[in-house]
Amino acid sequence: MKIKTKNLLQKEKERLDTGFGSKETNNSIRMVKANGEFNVKKLGQSTEAKLNLFHRLITMPTWKLGLMIFTFYFLGNLFFASVYMIIGIENLIGIVKKDTLSDFWEAFFFSSQTLTTLGYGRIAPVGFITNVVASIEALVGLLAFSITTGLLYGRFSRPTPRIIYSKNALVAPYLDINALMIKIANENSNQLINVEVSIIFSRNEEKDGKITRQYHTLDLERKFVKYFALSWTLVHPMTENSPLWGETPESLENSNAEILISLDGTNDTFADSINSRYSYQAKEILFGYKFENIIETNEAEYVLDLRKIDEISKV
Amino acid sequence: MKIKTKNLLQKEKERLDTGFGSKETNNSIRMVKANGEFNVKKLGQSTEAKLNLFHRLITMPTWKLGLMIFTFYFLGNLFFASVYMIIGIENLIGIVKKDTLSDFWEAFFFSSQTLTTLGYGRIAPVGFITNVVASIEALVGLLAFSITTGLLYGRFSRPTPRIIYSKNALVAPYLDINALMIKIANENSNQLINVEVSIIFSRNEEKDGKITRQYHTLDLERKFVKYFALSWTLVHPMTENSPLWGETPESLENSNAEILISLDGTNDTFADSINSRYSYQAKEILFGYKFENIIETNEAEYVLDLRKIDEISKV
Amino acid sequence: MKIKTKNLLQKEKERLDTGFGSKETNNSIRMVKANGEFNVKKLGQSTEAKLNLFHRLITMPTWKLGLMIFTFYFLGNLFFASVYMIIGIENLIGIVKKDTLSDFWEAFFFSSQTLTTLGYGRIAPVGFITNVVASIEALVGLLAFSITTGLLYGRFSRPTPRIIYSKNALVAPYLDINALMIKIANENSNQLINVEVSIIFSRNEEKDGKITRQYHTLDLERKFVKYFALSWTLVHPMTENSPLWGETPESLENSNAEILISLDGTNDTFADSINSRYSYQAKEILFGYKFENIIETNEAEYVLDLRKIDEISKV
Amino acid sequence: MKIKTKNLLQKEKERLDTGFGSKETNNSIRMVKANGEFNVKKLGQSTEAKLNLFHRLITMPTWKLGLMIFTFYFLGNLFFASVYMIIGIENLIGIVKKDTLSDFWEAFFFSSQTLTTLGYGRIAPVGFITNVVASIEALVGLLAFSITTGLLYGRFSRPTPRIIYSKNALVAPYLDINALMIKIANENSNQLINVEVSIIFSRNEEKDGKITRQYHTLDLERKFVKYFALSWTLVHPMTENSPLWGETPESLENSNAEILISLDGTNDTFADSINSRYSYQAKEILFGYKFENIIETNEAEYVLDLRKIDEISKV
Repeated sequence: MKIKTKNLLQKEKERLDTGFGSKETNNSIRMVKANGEFNVKKLGQSTEAKLNLFHRLITMPTWKLGLMIFTFYFLGNLFFASVYMIIGIENLIGIVKKDTLSDFWEAFFFSSQTLTTLGYGRIAPVGFITNVVASIEALVGLLAFSITTGLLYGRFSRPTPRIIYSKNALVAPYLDINALMIKIANENSNQLINVEVSIIFSRNEEKDGKITRQYHTLDLERKFVKYFALSWTLVHPMTENSPLWGETPESLENSNAEILISLDGTNDTFADSINSRYSYQAKEILFGYKFENIIETNEAEYVLDLRKIDEISKV
Repeated sequence: MKIKTKNLLQKEKERLDTGFGSKETNNSIRMVKANGEFNVKKLGQSTEAKLNLFHRLITMPTWKLGLMIFTFYFLGNLFFASVYMIIGIENLIGIVKKDTLSDFWEAFFFSSQTLTTLGYGRIAPVGFITNVVASIEALVGLLAFSITTGLLYGRFSRPTPRIIYSKNALVAPYLDINALMIKIANENSNQLINVEVSIIFSRNEEKDGKITRQYHTLDLERKFVKYFALSWTLVHPMTENSPLWGETPESLENSNAEILISLDGTNDTFADSINSRYSYQAKEILFGYKFENIIETNEAEYVLDLRKIDEISKV
Repeated sequence: MKIKTKNLLQKEKERLDTGFGSKETNNSIRMVKANGEFNVKKLGQSTEAKLNLFHRLITMPTWKLGLMIFTFYFLGNLFFASVYMIIGIENLIGIVKKDTLSDFWEAFFFSSQTLTTLGYGRIAPVGFITNVVASIEALVGLLAFSITTGLLYGRFSRPTPRIIYSKNALVAPYLDINALMIKIANENSNQLINVEVSIIFSRNEEKDGKITRQYHTLDLERKFVKYFALSWTLVHPMTENSPLWGETPESLENSNAEILISLDGTNDTFADSINSRYSYQAKEILFGYKFENIIETNEAEYVLDLRKIDEISKV
Repeated sequence: MKIKTKNLLQKEKERLDTGFGSKETNNSIRMVKANGEFNVKKLGQSTEAKLNLFHRLITMPTWKLGLMIFTFYFLGNLFFASVYMIIGIENLIGIVKKDTLSDFWEAFFFSSQTLTTLGYGRIAPVGFITNVVASIEALVGLLAFSITTGLLYGRFSRPTPRIIYSKNALVAPYLDINALMIKIANENSNQLINVEVSIIFSRNEEKDGKITRQYHTLDLERKFVKYFALSWTLVHPMTENSPLWGETPESLENSNAEILISLDGTNDTFADSINSRYSYQAKEILFGYKFENIIETNEAEYVLDLRKIDEISKV
């Protein structure tokens, strides 16, 4: 193989590719949104992938899911009540007859007693077709309930890390140089173990007169901790080899810099893996500040004050 | 140890063994089928392994499972209705008696009310044997429902990656040589992280006058990405060390070449592992084409157009 | 640190310790039983650890679990029926009264209708105490049913590999030496990926006039396969460095040799990890035999005949 | 980069940081509590993180959860009974009327029959509002039951290792030096595989006249076992490179030493990961004692006597 090819290959292999492409971006585009999701819109997804039903139901706020279940219950009963009305209300014996509206509500409540498999029996179906519909409704009710059970279990057994990231990334003196510092803590009472962090730094760079988006891994003083019991200050020493060497608040802003943090670990209640992401844009990186200490000890235990994670002081 | 033995051993260790044997194959046999399953038939499996019940129920299309549940429900009620008829319909009080057929349907609907634990009570069992059967039916109903709940949960909590692979693998200029390129994307809206890809190349090779099937790992410019948020072009540089060095469309066709891709990663909704496979046969490898770019940015986000994954242009 | 200490430490670190101790064993003791469990009895376990309830219920044969559920259902109803009898059968209205035995059965069936939440209502509770008991019984029934649902899901979602191991380990010529060979296959229709195998060889050894039990890892020609789609012949080349160098059937028998295989991998339906173990004792290791090929191809697919896994021929 | 910076950085990278800070601690503070939890109090958690509902429900003792379910059931029925009373007891037909208290209890039991979807039907709702409430109560009952099912499954499918640690860590002669020894065993009948142990040693250290808390990893003779079938004696050789070199019971006590053990492994029933932690304080480290052997063999199996794990003898 020619030396030139070898060198080109080597260089290509060493280039960090995040998959976000090398097109220059403007200041309003970030890779990761505030909630940790990638800032990507996909066109041409299949309906199934777009709907993404299970994922949505699992991650939806609880009040929304509750409302949805209630609405489905109401609509389901409305539907079956209509069917019973169409077949003939006389096939529901035990009904207290008054007028059509009242009949409808009786059919509605009979439906709800069937869908939930309550079956008081004050109202009961007679006749072939009404019985068929009631049989099917009970099966539908059971299946809906099966799905709900699975859904609720899926929701609360899902690993949901609550990593708190400091509002700002700081550049502060460290040893005899500067370092980029980010403070993180685990808000949950669960224990996180085997936690690993990686930081990617991205900015617009000029090369051969062309501006492209480039990505760099930032070396950390420490990228793995066995236990993540208290807080953790991520430290990237800004040595000459660092892509941050020589950067100023202005140069970061001009190159639309973004710092992307990814954290992997294990939650020890279920021994399940967790992943958390966060990103800082240029304006969230402060120069000349340092974090305050947030770990204290009282007479018998360590005390971590999460409210102080954003407390910083000028240096 | 003799040098010769040592060398033979070393060579044997370095030979890639996929477990598919070294027998020459013809053009109609591929290792991996279109759906990602291995193209293998197993003889002599135990009935349990052959039936593979849970696996089938979990992977079966939803409409098929729905039909199956409905059919089982119908047959179960048919069976229990028959039992109630045999014991004597007079043991079901509250029945509206007309003729045998009508009696049977009353028994059938009583059965459905028992199996679902509805129990309106308009029809109710009296007498020892009928009560025993009804007790058992209710238990059977509950257990069937337990299994269904588990099954449905198993289905929708199952990791189902939707990796889209470009229809063709391309051979295009890259740096100052050629490279094999394959484009992949994640159709799902979920995030995939820690994604690793490996490519195996297999073909019939002649050695010492004997044609055998040989397997090679193809080195990739990049085999791991931390995030798989957009699309990813897998690149195998065809250097002199590549088993693809000097291959032409014809030589690939003649040696019944197959390229097998395997992708491992983590889905971050549940932090569960996913695996996806795909294979290209000789005729799906195009020379002299390159992929079009499918990543754009609009004013505030990245845009990935999945419909363009197969857009290629001549070079 | 003294050189001597350093050497002793190094040697100690290199010694393979399986945790089975170094006491000489006789021919009737093996580390791993036929079903893959370790051949260990534990004394002094807590009742909870000894009962090991969930583990037992999960691994118990299906017919046994079915019988158990049925028995519990019967006993539960027996218990509650007795309670209703003691409180006074007159508190169950709707009962068809005949004699005490008949009353008891009516109470029994009322109980079963309550435990399953059927609630026909032909028999219904009146009076404070009977109502309290019925309320509790319905709650107990629901909870028991919850547990059963979880149990059944736990059972069928549990990863259960069906690795078939050849009945015998063979010693056959390989390259220009001998090798120990073991054939394995995956009986399940599921795909196993990222499969890794390790083999430990254990025997009584004499050292300084004392016989102790020693353990050695056997190097394999290949210990990892990306896909385990067909069969796999594990090959340990018996070079001069192998602990098997110079062994004969008699010497293996005399030293009570045992070969322990452990297989780790991933099942791709659920992307769950699987582990399988097997062991061969001296008398199951045959010298001078080799395995027959069990992989064929038909016109369109690979064919693996599992029934032939034990077919061997003299060399 | 300046040599000095490089050295400082290197030193910083090599320093073990457990995240517990370097503030000197007194003798009453330990990192890990007896139950394996970190000895940390967090201030400023969000209500949701503080409540930590699912985690609590999953780890709460069974009797407590049972009591809680029962209480909720009682309170739920109390609430709905009150609602039925307020709407008007005359809307519950079939009630045996006596006095207000008796009416209330009838409403209460009607509620319990609705919440559990029993629905005997002796008492049944009439009128719009009562029917609406009963419909909602049945839905609430089903959802509560769904959650309970998930909760119970979550509880018993949760990996709960029962690693027994010897009450004391011992310092005993080993080879021609001393070693720190800790004995562990798996009390469960399940098999643990791929078990890895790491030990961290922490103490107050004086440096440049300032006392800080420092952390060291203790090298182990063996830190990984493929199988953890019997007991395992963890051995840290106290060579000159060990931070324990030259320590005495008094010096350990004075520097408030703590030894923290962390064990990771895989449970093979479900192939799930487990993690266990334990810590020894200075006063639990005994010098001049060794562990007795607790592994025996009978005629056909290995016997592990867990009751003897704390048996030690003077050397």
